[in-house]
Amino acid sequence: MKKEKMITGFDNKLPERKDVVRAYSIVAKYASRTPILQSQSVNTILASNLFLKCENFQKVGAFKFRGASNAVFSLTEEEAKQGVITHSSGNHAAALALAAKMRGIPSFIVMPENAPSIKKKAVDGYGAKITFCPATQKDREETQARIQQETGATFIHPYNNFNVICGQGTASLELLEELPELDVVIAPVGGGGLLSGTLTYVKGFNPSIKVYGAEPINADDAFRSIRDNVIYPSESPKTIADGLLTSLCELTYDIISIKSDGILTVSEKGIVDAMRLVWERMKIIIEPSSAVPIAAIIEHPQYFKGKRVGVIISGGNVDLESLPFGKNI
Amino acid sequence: MKKEKMITGFDNKLPERKDVVRAYSIVAKYASRTPILQSQSVNTILASNLFLKCENFQKVGAFKFRGASNAVFSLTEEEAKQGVITHSSGNHAAALALAAKMRGIPSFIVMPENAPSIKKKAVDGYGAKITFCPATQKDREETQARIQQETGATFIHPYNNFNVICGQGTASLELLEELPELDVVIAPVGGGGLLSGTLTYVKGFNPSIKVYGAEPINADDAFRSIRDNVIYPSESPKTIADGLLTSLCELTYDIISIKSDGILTVSEKGIVDAMRLVWERMKIIIEPSSAVPIAAIIEHPQYFKGKRVGVIISGGNVDLESLPFGKNI
Repeated sequence: MKKEKMITGFDNKLPERKDVVRAYSIVAKYASRTPILQSQSVNTILASNLFLKCENFQKVGAFKFRGASNAVFSLTEEEAKQGVITHSSGNHAAALALAAKMRGIPSFIVMPENAPSIKKKAVDGYGAKITFCPATQKDREETQARIQQETGATFIHPYNNFNVICGQGTASLELLEELPELDVVIAPVGGGGLLSGTLTYVKGFNPSIKVYGAEPINADDAFRSIRDNVIYPSESPKTIADGLLTSLCELTYDIISIKSDGILTVSEKGIVDAMRLVWERMKIIIEPSSAVPIAAIIEHPQYFKGKRVGVIISGGNVDLESLPFGKNI
Repeated sequence: MKKEKMITGFDNKLPERKDVVRAYSIVAKYASRTPILQSQSVNTILASNLFLKCENFQKVGAFKFRGASNAVFSLTEEEAKQGVITHSSGNHAAALALAAKMRGIPSFIVMPENAPSIKKKAVDGYGAKITFCPATQKDREETQARIQQETGATFIHPYNNFNVICGQGTASLELLEELPELDVVIAPVGGGGLLSGTLTYVKGFNPSIKVYGAEPINADDAFRSIRDNVIYPSESPKTIADGLLTSLCELTYDIISIKSDGILTVSEKGIVDAMRLVWERMKIIIEPSSAVPIAAIIEHPQYFKGKRVGVIISGGNVDLESLPFGKNI
């Protein structure tokens, strides 16, 4: 899977472990240090020794606050006072809005009309100025460009951003600080920001630790992109993992294609079963995107059996009105 | 509310704080030390400083394992080898089955036919011998007496049992060990074992800490029993809080009537709203019975506003197939 050649010529700018360490000097001030949880019964069922890094307990209920706070607090005073802007399906939007609120600067959020209501409510609660637009990449980008021009706000991309990626990597920094002897780390991959930050820190810490990305087979653009050495756009994928609908960008493609040990794809049924397993056995609420790595451990046991596995649980924002269990299916 | 006269003449046998301390020397070996969680947003909404003692993360997903393990490991070798028996709507049954399995002795469980399927599955998984019977107190007791006679097993009542009550009190021991300066502690009340253990430890530790019980208004037998100085039977109450259907017994009546600062009743809507609040804001799964104290804090704010409140979260065993959210209502 390792590629020698990057398609973007970004090689001088790829983040390194020390950049994540520097990000942590900011992130640690604003983000929660999330717990790492284990479950005997889940470990028995999966025949692995799993350590869940619970970013569902992070501020705004997702790892995204790490990257957003690093990006917002890395701005100069001059830049900061114009505010920040982004387009996001939800968790990044909430994270950026809260980070901006903490710094006392305005935030402008462009959101698809079909974003889950719990995520809309959260963004609104953090005092962001929201503009809704149709749910295509093109509409989002056009709306965002227009508002950016009107306000002078700094655009903070959800993952094609050096500081955001370094911020996301701080979850792994905390994980390896407590558990330096992991065999494997696995994280979900949508746009690739979390996986890129994870790879940057973990491979810099110890290159012999395997790092996998996990992705719904119904939104397998990252798997295909890495396999074919080209960035495939994600075209209206149908998956319950609503945090993993986006495609890789240049920066995340380069990091993942160079450093990752593989992208593992999983079925929709596998995602729901994994989500149910964690809810029932561990009594914690994880969102479908967070169940994707657990599903990968179930559906690709050969990489995990008998291993010490760090699992980045990306978030816990689910809409309780439409859960994939029982009569709601 | 304080009564001078007990109706049961149990006064020489009421457990004291030192009995809970002694129970802890057993319970600490087998039960998990559960985390105490806080949420800034929940605290802001409720204008209180809440500390949730998360027995939903306890073994078998409920505080009941504390009492059951204390009872099982307090048996003599002679008693133990005949096994243990109980009738229970669920969590106590699972707890007793697991404690018996840990000691390597048989357990016999009499269960109502209408117990939630997740609870049946759990008991079965711990290797108990289950007998189903109609869901009345009388049927349960008759079936249990018959099996007890056949097997010679020791009956471990879910709450009318000194060792069980002392075991349940160990949750408060851990709570006050970390947070000795609480103003209030609140726990749900069904049969009263958890509340009795809580009262025994907390009032022994510092009698100026207020301790309340919380109960669904649709199953308010404890409230009426304490008010009228008589044990009212619980008659097929209709409440979502399926762990709180039972009535007080002599021992729990005496402890609660002497030591508690009051029983607070809550509406069914309040229970569902409280459950949703904790699920959404804290990303932890609590069962409806555990939402009852949170509902009491919302519906009776005068006892909690601005106070440091310990909340005993009794368990997290919900049936994901029939949740009280969205279309399932």
